[in-house]
Amino acid sequence: MTRSFVMALMFMCLIAGPWLTDAQAAADREKLLTEPGVYGTFALFALNDEWAKQDPAMRIVRLTSLKGVVEQHREHVAIDLYLLRGLSDHADLLFRIHAAELRATQEFLLDLKSSQFGRYLKTVGVMHGLTKKPNYVPGFPDPMKADLKAVSEPGQHPYAIVIPVRKSAEWWGLDQEKRAEMMQEHTAATLPYLKSVKRKLYHSSGLDDLDFITYFETSKLEDFHSLVLSLEKVQEFRYTRRFGSPTILGTMKSLDEIVELLAQ
Amino acid sequence: MTRSFVMALMFMCLIAGPWLTDAQAAADREKLLTEPGVYGTFALFALNDEWAKQDPAMRIVRLTSLKGVVEQHREHVAIDLYLLRGLSDHADLLFRIHAAELRATQEFLLDLKSSQFGRYLKTVGVMHGLTKKPNYVPGFPDPMKADLKAVSEPGQHPYAIVIPVRKSAEWWGLDQEKRAEMMQEHTAATLPYLKSVKRKLYHSSGLDDLDFITYFETSKLEDFHSLVLSLEKVQEFRYTRRFGSPTILGTMKSLDEIVELLAQ
Amino acid sequence: MTRSFVMALMFMCLIAGPWLTDAQAAADREKLLTEPGVYGTFALFALNDEWAKQDPAMRIVRLTSLKGVVEQHREHVAIDLYLLRGLSDHADLLFRIHAAELRATQEFLLDLKSSQFGRYLKTVGVMHGLTKKPNYVPGFPDPMKADLKAVSEPGQHPYAIVIPVRKSAEWWGLDQEKRAEMMQEHTAATLPYLKSVKRKLYHSSGLDDLDFITYFETSKLEDFHSLVLSLEKVQEFRYTRRFGSPTILGTMKSLDEIVELLAQ
Amino acid sequence: MTRSFVMALMFMCLIAGPWLTDAQAAADREKLLTEPGVYGTFALFALNDEWAKQDPAMRIVRLTSLKGVVEQHREHVAIDLYLLRGLSDHADLLFRIHAAELRATQEFLLDLKSSQFGRYLKTVGVMHGLTKKPNYVPGFPDPMKADLKAVSEPGQHPYAIVIPVRKSAEWWGLDQEKRAEMMQEHTAATLPYLKSVKRKLYHSSGLDDLDFITYFETSKLEDFHSLVLSLEKVQEFRYTRRFGSPTILGTMKSLDEIVELLAQ
Amino acid sequence: MTRSFVMALMFMCLIAGPWLTDAQAAADREKLLTEPGVYGTFALFALNDEWAKQDPAMRIVRLTSLKGVVEQHREHVAIDLYLLRGLSDHADLLFRIHAAELRATQEFLLDLKSSQFGRYLKTVGVMHGLTKKPNYVPGFPDPMKADLKAVSEPGQHPYAIVIPVRKSAEWWGLDQEKRAEMMQEHTAATLPYLKSVKRKLYHSSGLDDLDFITYFETSKLEDFHSLVLSLEKVQEFRYTRRFGSPTILGTMKSLDEIVELLAQ
Repeated sequence: MTRSFVMALMFMCLIAGPWLTDAQAAADREKLLTEPGVYGTFALFALNDEWAKQDPAMRIVRLTSLKGVVEQHREHVAIDLYLLRGLSDHADLLFRIHAAELRATQEFLLDLKSSQFGRYLKTVGVMHGLTKKPNYVPGFPDPMKADLKAVSEPGQHPYAIVIPVRKSAEWWGLDQEKRAEMMQEHTAATLPYLKSVKRKLYHSSGLDDLDFITYFETSKLEDFHSLVLSLEKVQEFRYTRRFGSPTILGTMKSLDEIVELLAQ
Repeated sequence: MTRSFVMALMFMCLIAGPWLTDAQAAADREKLLTEPGVYGTFALFALNDEWAKQDPAMRIVRLTSLKGVVEQHREHVAIDLYLLRGLSDHADLLFRIHAAELRATQEFLLDLKSSQFGRYLKTVGVMHGLTKKPNYVPGFPDPMKADLKAVSEPGQHPYAIVIPVRKSAEWWGLDQEKRAEMMQEHTAATLPYLKSVKRKLYHSSGLDDLDFITYFETSKLEDFHSLVLSLEKVQEFRYTRRFGSPTILGTMKSLDEIVELLAQ
Repeated sequence: MTRSFVMALMFMCLIAGPWLTDAQAAADREKLLTEPGVYGTFALFALNDEWAKQDPAMRIVRLTSLKGVVEQHREHVAIDLYLLRGLSDHADLLFRIHAAELRATQEFLLDLKSSQFGRYLKTVGVMHGLTKKPNYVPGFPDPMKADLKAVSEPGQHPYAIVIPVRKSAEWWGLDQEKRAEMMQEHTAATLPYLKSVKRKLYHSSGLDDLDFITYFETSKLEDFHSLVLSLEKVQEFRYTRRFGSPTILGTMKSLDEIVELLAQ
Repeated sequence: MTRSFVMALMFMCLIAGPWLTDAQAAADREKLLTEPGVYGTFALFALNDEWAKQDPAMRIVRLTSLKGVVEQHREHVAIDLYLLRGLSDHADLLFRIHAAELRATQEFLLDLKSSQFGRYLKTVGVMHGLTKKPNYVPGFPDPMKADLKAVSEPGQHPYAIVIPVRKSAEWWGLDQEKRAEMMQEHTAATLPYLKSVKRKLYHSSGLDDLDFITYFETSKLEDFHSLVLSLEKVQEFRYTRRFGSPTILGTMKSLDEIVELLAQ
Repeated sequence: MTRSFVMALMFMCLIAGPWLTDAQAAADREKLLTEPGVYGTFALFALNDEWAKQDPAMRIVRLTSLKGVVEQHREHVAIDLYLLRGLSDHADLLFRIHAAELRATQEFLLDLKSSQFGRYLKTVGVMHGLTKKPNYVPGFPDPMKADLKAVSEPGQHPYAIVIPVRKSAEWWGLDQEKRAEMMQEHTAATLPYLKSVKRKLYHSSGLDDLDFITYFETSKLEDFHSLVLSLEKVQEFRYTRRFGSPTILGTMKSLDEIVELLAQ
């Protein structure tokens, strides 16, 4: 009993730790998540076999280091966490990291890896992309532009899906006008789902073996499925050489939720 | 002798445990297995090297936790078990899980993985699909619709086969009418096998690197082979980019049978 | 000295064990190896790193369990063994198992895996096929039918080769007549090698990610090479999507020879 | 405290060690990095799981051997180091080695691997290429030749990217004139980025499963992204069978920086 | 000191051991290396992690077993050794073994694997081919035949390269005359390199997932690169489905050199 009481205390400290948001950090985070010219990194990790063998007290000690590293870097990078275990087969955790410079992201991931928690993490994948101003939207008809301003439904969107995309050489060989035409058909197919499926696009060419990383949030997975089905039916899809492989499906979690789940 | 007597007792308790079906749970399970709008997850696991080194008493202790986790979640998810070992090369066990929300499935798999038994499981694959009302059947001629209502032969269908499918971009680029025509040819090819091979279809686009998960049960594997051969010969098959890879073949087992087999 | 004497005794017992063929088992085996409607399974295993660390006495103990499992199942399944080590890079042993039902094969492989020897085996691959009456032969001209009745040369055929095959969707989309025509050209190319290369065909569609498993035995590998070269030159080969990958090459061994070789 | 004082001392010695550049070595290095007929090797390593378990004092001892090996070989080979961890998912360190003969490179890598540090390194990839005089430039118009003489911006270029390239058989089958024409279009697309993105080309055919290794340095990753996007749009890109896979992204580090980072 | 003296002695014995060439063995070796109808096996091995942990004295003991196995089999098989470490990423050692029968090769590799040294070897790849009389040369014009008789430059050719090749189904579907014509163009492209790059061809169809294994020796890697580049430009190259993957690059070593290098 005494032991579990001590552990409960340790756990309380861990959760209630110095995870205070001050206005400045929040503002920086907002900028990183909305502006063009920001680097987004998707880092996928699996917990190794030794994690399962750690006793709960030790796990809590390790998880404290995770909290510490995130705390220490949150002034420079915006960090979001996702639980993949149970929904994706190749990784347990996804970190989405936004930064003005990839060096800041590398520094965070180096510190994470050399933390007490990091030694239980196996790096499964790292993908980078860049946010940019919309390419084709300026040429779309005005009603479509208006439609695109629809804000997604408020409230929680527990599911997140990441789909890496690579286009064919034929796609890039088309002239801008032809591509714009097809992107308009593509965009029209997405309109019915703008409210229930939130999207964000990252440009990857050269930073990775991808051209784009597409990121989605939703509370209605069935709508997301219908959206993808619609996108498979437009002409532009024939110029897609890789779509997924892997498709990454998980649930958004706060750092505290992740800590609580992994402590078990 | 005393030791094996104790172990036999332990084993009896394990098998005869609180695995009671109450009417409500059965009704929920029935709904999950028959209605559209349900998520089906196929989770493939391999037992790691350490399992083989556990002595039988310890295995029984571990298997008790498996029973416990399944018991605890069966109100929210419908769980079916399959033994792949000996018939498939990449996994030992398959869990087919039906749920109204993938979050419920994730919670079950998280608890499974953090159970005493779960630490011996290596996740080999996770695939998700959604049940939907038939797409093309409403447009089929009436005699075919009548044929499709044939119920499969009663009794046990010990073999289960799971074949993941991805269609080509060309398929999705065809108009609905052309696809319906080819699906009618596809369906005609399946009619001779409706009684001996039970089928269930899951739609996966966006949830996974697949478009469909096709699931089969049969007691006559030779009939199933003939069915697949027929399906390879119809026009629609030319629009299939991935068929299997892996093809998953196993035998359906009750939780108690699995426990008994793994305890050895 | 005493120790090696004991080990020699142990080894003698192992080799001279109750591996007695009674007439019934031999008849059943003959049927399984020649009739249509039989399932053939090719199970590939690698010995893990721990096997190399066992001392010879312990190996002999483990190998006794291999003999026991094979003995116990030989009434229901016909088992052939091949040594791949040194000739194939991904596996050390191949079991070819014929059974009237795949469940019987699964039971054998489960018992093999949970035997004392089985814990040193890593499953590398499992492929299944079904023997069927010849598809195209009935339509061949009579002289070719007569040629096909040639029996292979008596005596030992030490080399065995297994080549998995998958045909393209285009192949299955051809009409039966066109396929028969090409299979006649294919068969004509094999005639010069009928005597020196023994062949057996298994149909796999749906049971595996294959359409066929082709199995060969020969004492003249150079003839086998010439046969494959001839088959690559006929029109039907252009409809082959996968040929090998892996090609499995090994030598046929009796159970006693395998035991003797692995005991070293 | 005493222990950390000793460790600090050890670390000082490590960093301040005999890493002295004499004029001759610098001159040789300059030649290796600029002349044609030099072999460039890109060797990728991951730190194994045991490295994370070493205590800091032991790590410093190991890293001393890394410094020693580099020191010992720098008369014969020019060695550059890059930190990939956090930015690439399959490796932690990249060594770029230039030598007049690949045997000298092999000797360095053998000594590295058998050093005290080397036993913690898992070789993830080795690629070789040869520097050659420009193939197509002599035929370019004079203004383009002048543009190509632009020197890249001075100062640090912290990011390095390595993209392996394999051309299609169709590319090599084109006549020299057609290829020269397309390379001129390719080169024109690179002109806007000559100042902010430094490039170096290695020819690999036969030395590796590649035709080229393209190496980039930049402080502006967004410019590099735009450069790659431009290159994807020219006609020559359609003749590229492999571009990346993997794309290797890291930051340039001095040996001392690497030692300092890994000591943590 | 005493210990290193003993180790030096052990090492001397190892190197100076009974590696005596008698005239008969030399003659047999010569025949195996030059005649048609001989099987060539390329066996690739990586040293496992435990090797790096052995102390030098133990390594020498292990290496003695390597020498013993090679000694014991050299009457029946011709064995050549290559050091890949540092130049290839997937293996450390290559054994090229020529034998009149693949069974003899299997016996050597079985003994190697079960030797004291063999337990540190991980089999990475095994490829087989058959030497045959030239297929197309008899039909070449006389001046080309004369050119092909040029002997390669005397002296050491330290680099060896192995490139596995698979032709497309289209290649084999061409008639013999068309293929002969293209092989003449292919051969013409190799003439400038006959002296500086030594070549040997093995036919693999059916023995492996390959059609050919091409083997090269040179002291001028740049010439070898130019040769491959020339071969990529001839028409026949368009019918090549696999070229390399992997390309194996290493340096030729005597058994004593390998022993000395691995003892370190």
